[in-house]
Amino acid sequence: MKLLLDFGNTRVKAAVSDGSGLREIYSGPVDSDALANAVAAFHIEGGMWCSVRPVPDDIVRWLDSMDVLALDWKTPVPLKNAYRTPCTLGMDRLAAAVGAWSLKPGHDLLVIDAGTAITFDFVTSDGTYIGGNIAPGVEMRLKSLHEHTGALPLVDRTGPVPRFGYDTDTAIRSGVTVGISNEIQGYVSCLEAEYPSVLVFLTGGDAETFDFKCKNGNFAVPNLVLTGLDCISRFNEIG
Amino acid sequence: MKLLLDFGNTRVKAAVSDGSGLREIYSGPVDSDALANAVAAFHIEGGMWCSVRPVPDDIVRWLDSMDVLALDWKTPVPLKNAYRTPCTLGMDRLAAAVGAWSLKPGHDLLVIDAGTAITFDFVTSDGTYIGGNIAPGVEMRLKSLHEHTGALPLVDRTGPVPRFGYDTDTAIRSGVTVGISNEIQGYVSCLEAEYPSVLVFLTGGDAETFDFKCKNGNFAVPNLVLTGLDCISRFNEIG
Repeated sequence: MKLLLDFGNTRVKAAVSDGSGLREIYSGPVDSDALANAVAAFHIEGGMWCSVRPVPDDIVRWLDSMDVLALDWKTPVPLKNAYRTPCTLGMDRLAAAVGAWSLKPGHDLLVIDAGTAITFDFVTSDGTYIGGNIAPGVEMRLKSLHEHTGALPLVDRTGPVPRFGYDTDTAIRSGVTVGISNEIQGYVSCLEAEYPSVLVFLTGGDAETFDFKCKNGNFAVPNLVLTGLDCISRFNEIG
Repeated sequence: MKLLLDFGNTRVKAAVSDGSGLREIYSGPVDSDALANAVAAFHIEGGMWCSVRPVPDDIVRWLDSMDVLALDWKTPVPLKNAYRTPCTLGMDRLAAAVGAWSLKPGHDLLVIDAGTAITFDFVTSDGTYIGGNIAPGVEMRLKSLHEHTGALPLVDRTGPVPRFGYDTDTAIRSGVTVGISNEIQGYVSCLEAEYPSVLVFLTGGDAETFDFKCKNGNFAVPNLVLTGLDCISRFNEIG
């Protein structure tokens, strides 16, 4: 079994893979005991991890001991990377792009990862990772409106989302949710005008939250980063 | 002369009006001496102010002494207010809506105020303020991506804005700027589908920043809140 780990801004997700598919085994805080418990039942021979934050040394050493290696910008991947500063590209974004490409190779792909931040990454049908954008996620927007203004409360994301708010809660909740839906729709419509067969992949904790239309349907894949790590791990014959 | 003041999240703007137009006399920090200096040259007889933060007591007393009154939710305005909780509606939003209505009465109006936060408010052609949404502004999004993630820097808003970022700076700057443009476009397109003659007003410090299309042109009005306060002040024959 390969072990795959996606360390995000707020939690880590881990899965094992025998080559025929992922089995998620952990999703929660970055806790070495909890991770070791989740992994204990499996015979791990290699794998890959990526992180958007520094990972505690003891966890890195534990992963090293199983030949579970960090994805970094020098790791060969099955996409050309046109990013001008590949050493600063978030490896979760590259992994998600590879994950989408592994599921739909040869297509133009828009990959949206909606979590703490929302990333929009674009891959062309010749297998080139073009680049992408980063915007605040739902909770981040709700918090920032509270933290950076004098009078706005911290609004719960759960509740009515009218087109236009009719009180403070709905004004903020709709402002954030309708805003992000519009944002996604803008990327999709803009790309579809130029790349009519572009496929849209969604992943991340908030992938199901937003309302938009795309001509070619969209693909909601819960563990696209882990799928990409699995693909890259095999591409490098690690483990 | 009437005195009009719009206390925002980061600064206050003041103007005087003789009924034929606004003359901006101050834009800067909330400082009682600076405000008094700016106003000293004018004979003030009444006026109106609104604020999104508590205003220092000494400034409120000084304004009271000139019969410059606070706009509050009980103040009569030339719009019907359909907001369910009018006592919690930001008075800057109501003033901006009235300002737009005073310039284009009898039209469906989308009023966008792009500052610290971005507000989207909708007025129908029968003179009803329907409600609106609140989303984070440019600087707030840039700051929140830095503050609420482990690895993202605080990016300067000034610089290239490609469709998709090619390094960390452009990924974040485009994520924020293209995102907000998409967000605005979404509101405009959605309303135009249902209200084909809707007019779009833009105000606030970032009004010129974003790229979107609207069928009926858009109106950039630097001091729409102050315009609305002037209108409401006269509507109530204050001063």
